Amino acid sequence: MNIDLIISADDIKKEKIINKSVLIIDILRATSVIITALNNGCKKAIPVLTVEEAQNKSSKNRNEYILGGERKALKIEGFDFSNSPLEYKKELVKDKILIITTSNGTRAIKGSEGADNILLGAFINANSAADKLVDLGKDIVIVNSGTDGQFSMDDFICSGYIIDCILKKVKADLTDISKTALYIYRENKDITGFMKHAKHYNRIKKLGLEEDLKYCCQKDIIKIVPYYKDGVILK
Amino acid sequence: MNIDLIISADDIKKEKIINKSVLIIDILRATSVIITALNNGCKKAIPVLTVEEAQNKSSKNRNEYILGGERKALKIEGFDFSNSPLEYKKELVKDKILIITTSNGTRAIKGSEGADNILLGAFINANSAADKLVDLGKDIVIVNSGTDGQFSMDDFICSGYIIDCILKKVKADLTDISKTALYIYRENKDITGFMKHAKHYNRIKKLGLEEDLKYCCQKDIIKIVPYYKDGVILK
Repeated sequence: MNIDLIISADDIKKEKIINKSVLIIDILRATSVIITALNNGCKKAIPVLTVEEAQNKSSKNRNEYILGGERKALKIEGFDFSNSPLEYKKELVKDKILIITTSNGTRAIKGSEGADNILLGAFINANSAADKLVDLGKDIVIVNSGTDGQFSMDDFICSGYIIDCILKKVKADLTDISKTALYIYRENKDITGFMKHAKHYNRIKKLGLEEDLKYCCQKDIIKIVPYYKDGVILK
Repeated sequence: MNIDLIISADDIKKEKIINKSVLIIDILRATSVIITALNNGCKKAIPVLTVEEAQNKSSKNRNEYILGGERKALKIEGFDFSNSPLEYKKELVKDKILIITTSNGTRAIKGSEGADNILLGAFINANSAADKLVDLGKDIVIVNSGTDGQFSMDDFICSGYIIDCILKKVKADLTDISKTALYIYRENKDITGFMKHAKHYNRIKKLGLEEDLKYCCQKDIIKIVPYYKDGVILK
């Protein structure tokens, strides 16, 4: 089993993901949001690339849907929720369909179409994601959504933690970039000591969203591992 | 001044290098070779992408030229030198024109065409390269040649060292990937403790080229900083 890593949504190349199990990571905050929503009873999530697409899809039977996501880290006009996982409470999301559009995470999910399996990971479900990837038995590519097409330290250290979890279950060959992510995690097991230098982490902190950061940095509080297939994310 | 980093020759995007000073790094071994050859009196170096191109360019006046480079880390048939910097001795390269083709470094140089300045760096000239980049005053992009289109730990830690040198001279904003390279270097100032895990380092070691590795890991033994312009590398 081989573990590779792609550093941003803009760096996904089809030849790197074909026949592989892909794990999409956007811990701040798209995958943390989707994992939370599905864990809280949301029926499914539909990632879309544009605000218009989200509005069109939900225009019939509007009350079946919740619209979530962000542009420049902020709530989109006319949407129900922003990209804060703390908003996706059980009583609000149960039995609903989430339509979500974000700057980085949804692009990474769509860009990974063509892989054998597409799973969603974050710190909150990391160990379960590692279990699932090992069970699937395929070579693994961890796709960091990154920030605006750039490498993001927050996704990178989360990848390192998930690789650490995988290696506790199975032997694997790591590419140089995977080894570097693992090294970063093992040298910074408290996470935030490293993450606090990340540009995106600081952008969210400046917006006063410290509670989101605290929530997204918790390890293994959720057991489900959502997967994307035919345009839909299910648990 | 901003410092960004590109992780492999295959990941160069024009919009990231336009109006910037680019520093190409392929410490194992293309940039280490070219810096050494020019420092030892070689008149200029011409990087080419194919073996055929190297042969055509040198076919007239063959004795003016030396042909160097590698495929799969080994000497090319009919060439004068391999990709070992130790072969490029003063008495052999003085007043010659080096035509060089390598798997990663020459692709990174050619791929960076369009940048304002294209310089060549390695551990052996790192501090001088940092001086030159600061003097030029432009935003900086460090292009790691990588290995076969992949991130390579050896180029990455060298980038970290060069960023460390730059920050001793001037204040600069770092992208997340530049910060991570700097972190790796500062945690591994002996270099080889980290580098010995790199796939490419081990490939070269297995070929019995330990002396090359030792040479390429020496810091600041050369003062020149070669630059690439109009198809030619000059000191």
